[in-house]
Amino acid sequence: MKYFAKISYVGTGFCGFQYQSGLRTVQGELTRICEELFGCRCDVTGCSRTDSGVHAREFCITAEPKSDRFNRIPPESLPAAAEYLMPGDMSMFYAAYADDDFHPRYSALGKEYVYEAYCSDVKNPFFENRAWHIKQNITDAGIERMNRAAEYITGTHDFSSFMSSGSKITDAVRTVKNLRIYRDGEKILFVISADGFLYNMVRIIVGTLKDVACGKIEPEEIVKIIESGDRANAGATAPACGLYLNRVFYR
Amino acid sequence: MKYFAKISYVGTGFCGFQYQSGLRTVQGELTRICEELFGCRCDVTGCSRTDSGVHAREFCITAEPKSDRFNRIPPESLPAAAEYLMPGDMSMFYAAYADDDFHPRYSALGKEYVYEAYCSDVKNPFFENRAWHIKQNITDAGIERMNRAAEYITGTHDFSSFMSSGSKITDAVRTVKNLRIYRDGEKILFVISADGFLYNMVRIIVGTLKDVACGKIEPEEIVKIIESGDRANAGATAPACGLYLNRVFYR
Repeated sequence: MKYFAKISYVGTGFCGFQYQSGLRTVQGELTRICEELFGCRCDVTGCSRTDSGVHAREFCITAEPKSDRFNRIPPESLPAAAEYLMPGDMSMFYAAYADDDFHPRYSALGKEYVYEAYCSDVKNPFFENRAWHIKQNITDAGIERMNRAAEYITGTHDFSSFMSSGSKITDAVRTVKNLRIYRDGEKILFVISADGFLYNMVRIIVGTLKDVACGKIEPEEIVKIIESGDRANAGATAPACGLYLNRVFYR
Repeated sequence: MKYFAKISYVGTGFCGFQYQSGLRTVQGELTRICEELFGCRCDVTGCSRTDSGVHAREFCITAEPKSDRFNRIPPESLPAAAEYLMPGDMSMFYAAYADDDFHPRYSALGKEYVYEAYCSDVKNPFFENRAWHIKQNITDAGIERMNRAAEYITGTHDFSSFMSSGSKITDAVRTVKNLRIYRDGEKILFVISADGFLYNMVRIIVGTLKDVACGKIEPEEIVKIIESGDRANAGATAPACGLYLNRVFYR
């Protein structure tokens, strides 16, 4: 018996999703909460291994009680029951039964991330740990340049140039289905969806687009950066605090 | 010589504005920062004594170096200089010289507060400590009821019914210039401006309006609640975390 659930969390207080002994992680908190709810040992599996400081508006998990005798909480009651045990920076807003062969990570057809940034001389304390503070001013022309660069990123490519070293992935071909950049109030939002993402891929794309906005890279140069397959040709990795996992797509 | 400055802060990590020995307060942090910047003892005076957990998007202060020999930082350089010493939850975004007789509190002609709330079964972790989580659903009809009640609050009245006990104020007559309630995305915003506010006045008005939205109080009953002068007739005090000092008005 497996439960599927959608959760959201503010990443600031977590050392990422994946369980690490002695550190506060999303998986660690969820395992503790599920074991208390179901009254037995539980396996909690996530749709992604988000890094330390990365946020999630919709993160999908399965929770599997590892005993035949567990509290049989109906899924529709799970979010309200979990609410009492959840810390302030985490919430469950949907739950259902999952098929046995469903896996939140391997069954996903794709994901959508939003990266949030803002431009200002001094920081906005309400955006602290929630958005990238860019001290240069990005004009509307800069946003237009980023959207032109985004056209070269969209599509199926080998994204080795946009992957942090240290990753063990051998096949770096991914399909970026959508990438658009626009102003939303004081913020600049980068919305990107793909069938899969390499390690730090969104953050390196955003860091590179910021260089495009500031005139350091021309939009057309993105083609050469992708072709080179060399991480050193792309821009810096944008900070974790601006990144939000926004949606996970399943069949 | 006096400096005037506009700051903003997230109230969550502060025990209010006013200095308290051994506690982290906005005034305490600002005094420390100003003394480091100016190289001498400083008097920091604020426009309001916000409570613990209350936020400010625009809070006005004066800073007065108490020595003739101090670092004569030009006001236009002050925000950038302060930025290096400011904690993550506080920022200075404007500074100028102030007249000797200017007082950030007594010279103010009025203030505008925004109160932020949201309705949902389970909490939104991104709004934790930043907005009031109302578990009941407030419909558009409920918002319309609140705006009808707001018409009875607007104007010059004795607001004793909307003042927490323990206040030493004897004259509770204030003029509410504007009060409107509207939906903004997932949130419900209460915007209120007045020539002055009594202790907990905004939070009690919001708590009362919520009772109006939920049908516990009729909009017309506001007249009797004001006339009674009795705090017990108004609604509960809404939590501090939803309250934002938004603007201070000077001549």
